[in-house]
Order: sequence, then C-alpha cells, then structure tokens
Amino acid sequence: MRQAGRYLPQFRALRAKYDFLTLCRTPELVAEVTSQPIDYLGVDAAILFCDILVVLDAMDRGLHFDKGVGPVIDRPIHSSEEIAQLHRPDVADSLSYVADGIKACKERISVPLIGFCGAPFTVASYLIEGGGSRDYKRTKQWIFRDPKGLHALLSLLCDVTIDYCKLQIEAGVQALQVFDSWAHLLAQAQFEEFSLHYLKRIVDALRPTGIPVILFCRGSSFFAEQLASLQPAAISIDWSADLSQLSRKLPSNIALQGNLDPDILYADKSTIERECKKLLNGMKDHPGYIFNLGHGLKPDMEPENVRCLVDTVRNS
Amino acid sequence: MRQAGRYLPQFRALRAKYDFLTLCRTPELVAEVTSQPIDYLGVDAAILFCDILVVLDAMDRGLHFDKGVGPVIDRPIHSSEEIAQLHRPDVADSLSYVADGIKACKERISVPLIGFCGAPFTVASYLIEGGGSRDYKRTKQWIFRDPKGLHALLSLLCDVTIDYCKLQIEAGVQALQVFDSWAHLLAQAQFEEFSLHYLKRIVDALRPTGIPVILFCRGSSFFAEQLASLQPAAISIDWSADLSQLSRKLPSNIALQGNLDPDILYADKSTIERECKKLLNGMKDHPGYIFNLGHGLKPDMEPENVRCLVDTVRNS
Repeated sequence: MRQAGRYLPQFRALRAKYDFLTLCRTPELVAEVTSQPIDYLGVDAAILFCDILVVLDAMDRGLHFDKGVGPVIDRPIHSSEEIAQLHRPDVADSLSYVADGIKACKERISVPLIGFCGAPFTVASYLIEGGGSRDYKRTKQWIFRDPKGLHALLSLLCDVTIDYCKLQIEAGVQALQVFDSWAHLLAQAQFEEFSLHYLKRIVDALRPTGIPVILFCRGSSFFAEQLASLQPAAISIDWSADLSQLSRKLPSNIALQGNLDPDILYADKSTIERECKKLLNGMKDHPGYIFNLGHGLKPDMEPENVRCLVDTVRNS
Repeated sequence: MRQAGRYLPQFRALRAKYDFLTLCRTPELVAEVTSQPIDYLGVDAAILFCDILVVLDAMDRGLHFDKGVGPVIDRPIHSSEEIAQLHRPDVADSLSYVADGIKACKERISVPLIGFCGAPFTVASYLIEGGGSRDYKRTKQWIFRDPKGLHALLSLLCDVTIDYCKLQIEAGVQALQVFDSWAHLLAQAQFEEFSLHYLKRIVDALRPTGIPVILFCRGSSFFAEQLASLQPAAISIDWSADLSQLSRKLPSNIALQGNLDPDILYADKSTIERECKKLLNGMKDHPGYIFNLGHGLKPDMEPENVRCLVDTVRNS
C-alpha cells in the first residue's frame, strides 16, 4: 500500500530528479525505490515499484503523471468505435522495462517480491475518464448506455492484464496483487458483471502458475464474499470492515490481508500501537492472516510512524 | 434525493436570478422550488428545499456557495480551543427562515412534506475541512489526534441538530430525513463511535414527537444493521447493496427506502424501466418499502428520464 512512495524523503529526493514514468521505466531506479522501504522499515515483503496504468502506456494511450494532478491519459476512449480500433500490445516488448525492473529488484532485495496490476474495471475507468475523476460519471454512464461496448473494452484489458501478470511471474515475482481501486462505485449487480467476472478470468488464468494471487478492491469490506467465491489465495480488505467479524463469514482456506485505517498513522505512537494491537489480537486465531493497511500511505505521513507500526507488528 | 435541483430548467432559471442561500432564506422561493418537482414529476412527497449546512449559517461560520465549488465555510474549526468558543445558537431565531419556508410550502403543496438535516459527523466534516474535500483528511486526522475534542464538536452539533429538527416539526414537516453523506469514510468502529452514537441521540430525542425519522448514510448498504439497531422509522439505502438481499437481514418493522443507482438515469428509457421494475419486483413482499434513488440526481440528467422513472413506479 504505497510502502515505497512520497512519505519517504529518500523517494522524494529521487522524484526531484526523475519524473514518475522515468522511475518506472529504469530498472536500477525501480530496484532502488522498491528497496527503500525494505531498508528503512524492515517489512517482510517488497512490493514492486510501478503503476497500475503502465498497461495504458503499453497501449500507447499517452500516459503521463502531472504534478498535483496524478495520472493523465492524453488519448482517452469515447466510443465503441474507438474500442474496436484498440489492439492487444505485445507486453513482452512494450513492458520489457517492468520485467527488467523485477530482475533488478531480485538481485538487490532478499525478501519476497510482490508484483501487481490494476483490475480491468479500474484501468478502464482511467482510460474512459482520461485520468482520475471525482465521480467517474463517464464510466458509470457507459455501463448503462453501452454495456456491450464496455465489455469489449474490459475483455481486451483483461487479456492484456493476464499477459502482463505472466510477464511479471516469468521475471520473478513471488505473488501478485490485483488492485480494483474504483470497484466501490459499483452497485452489487454491476460489480458482479463489470468487475468480478474479469477478476475471475485473471485468477483462473494465473492458477496454473502456482503464484498466489491477492485481490484488493476499494469496497472489499462489502464485496468480500463475492471475491472469496473466486478462490484467490488471499483477499486484501479495505479499512471499512471489522476484520475479525468479517473473517467469520469467509472460507478459512483464503488468507485475509489488511485492514488498518491508514489515517491512524496521523496519530501519536501510543495510538498507533494500540490500534495495531487491537487488529492483531482480533485476527490471532486466523491462519495465514497478513497484516497490512486498508489503503495507501499518504505523502505527508511521518516515516517514523510507519516504522513504529511495522515494529509493533514484528514485536507482537 | 435532490428532486428539486439543477436538472430542472425551472430551477436553473431561478438560480440564475438568486444565489443558493438566498433561495434557502426566502420562504416564497423555498415553496416555489420545493413544488417544482411535485408539479413536474408527480411524486408522492415533497422534500423541503434547503441545505444540510444551514446550521453552520446559524452558527455564523461564514457559509456560502460558490459556483462550481459548492459549499464553502469561511471560518472552519482548527482546534479544541476553537470548539470551546462555539455556542449553541437559538435556531428559532437564526433559522426562522426555514420555519417560514416550511409554512409557505405547506400552503402551496398538497403532498406530505419531508424535512431534513445533516448528521453531526457530516456537518462536522464540512466545518473542519472548510467545505467539501476529496479525502476528508483533516477530519480523519482529528479522529485519531483529538477524539475528545471531536466528540465535543459532535455533541454540540447534535444538540443544534435536534433543536433544528424540532423547529422543522413545529413548522409542519411530516417526516424527517437525516443525511450522513460522509459516513462511508469511517471504519466500522469509528462509525459507531463518531456517527451512530449521535444518530441515536437524534432518533431518541425525536421519538416522542411521533414524526417518522429516516436515516440515510453513504455507506448505509454496509452499516444497515447498525442503523437498524437505533429503530428509526426507516432506513434509506445507498445504491451499493442488492436491496432485496439486504432486507432479509433487517428487522421487518423498519421501512426500507432506496436504492436505485441514480446513474441509471443516464440510460435510455427502456433501461430505466427495466432496472426500476427489477428493484420494485425484488421488494414486492417488503411491507412499507419506499421507492427512492440511492443517491442524488445530477445536474445534467434529463428531466424526462426522471419523469419516466416516476411514471414506472406509479404504474407498477
């Protein structure tokens, strides 16, 4: 959950020299950024430094990151006709920089490396909106105005995502997390039709590789039972649910990951320790529980507080 | 759910002449705006035209509405010291314009009139952030940095809100809806401590009046069982849940209201009819079900589509 990122001064120092996509595209820098939180925090696993939207870079949609704005897609999609003109890129070629970054990480880092990708629905939302959005209105409109067109887009993005995950696995990642950051905008039936269906295709396609797949949605507190029906190795839960209560409703063969409210890191250390221990205590009988935040770290969080959190987990 | 609002050309015509707060403060204009959707749509009840933040106007925090921005609070709250200096206004005096607006509506409108207020947590969020916010970071920080201070603010706002609801009841509203628009930002334990506790105080304080209280949260799909524990007359559900499934988990003596995804109104009429009938059919055995949207109408929705929806409900 952005364990490599702007809250770390050593990341900001690199970011002052290189733009975001240059960092993603340069294997030595990927290894440097990915290892920063490992060195500073001492966490049990590294998550690859990259961005869920690089598949749109591979598809030549004009991805760039603007300061204070976030991702921008210069060539968003407006119609079914435009979707029909999209092609499935050769990710081995266009995203070779990710494979090279993974290999550079593996040489440098001794803990397991987690790769990741965006879920088709979330990536489609960015591609339709042209970037982030307050209400994702164009995407929601598309659901009702042209569901068939949207499915064509999701299906293509799903194929690209599966190719991309396989590329990461071949390069050496030891687990893969799928991020569906905007799934919470969907009503339950919409979630099943436009998100879950494609998550299932990804989980099923990757199952033969033996690499554990972790599913995260914003809204996974609410959609946990549907996600569990796909039988992924693990589900990562956002901060809404009481995880200990939720775990009782879910099959015990699926690991649960999460779900501390990241905003707790704005508190003082004793509050951080108390809230962390409460969560750990609630999950102490759950086999395979993986401590994590329920959402990403924010740029103005204190690195010391993040380390205090990791230390609390380690010492519990 | 904004049945009076910018999607109606007759509302935009008035809004071109008067600013938002002037509309709220002028009884004849309140009656005019409140009646517009009754005349055009033929709905079964009117919801008072007003804004949840007028209590901050009563508390002299410099409330105004800026074009394209929404509500702005010129004097937000930054500290416990500032909270200690806040006072409980005499709403009979400072919000007499709402009472007068209600009386003007009652003279003009023949259907029942629903009053409303913001929940203390949501109103506090606006007061802390100084307006709307993307991530409500200052409010979330306050939860962890100074929960006691936040409780002092919530308790004061709860008292003011109860006074304000009683004022509306005395002026003639026949039901009251409480809007907790930002509750979905809260983790479950936070929701219970910082939102539900105050909703309970409101429901309990208004119970002796005999006026039905309807509770709405963004997140009510997720928090429905906690809301039901307060035994309000009704719960209004956001668009996330499958309402028919959710209704089976809730006590049958509480009416359910909701929860069509408002974005369905961007579709064509046959889709609107189909989705509306699906919802009605799922709720046909639920006594006291109240059809409604799961969130507010948006300014660029077609009035004809909204009317098509109302007609479908009426004819089913």
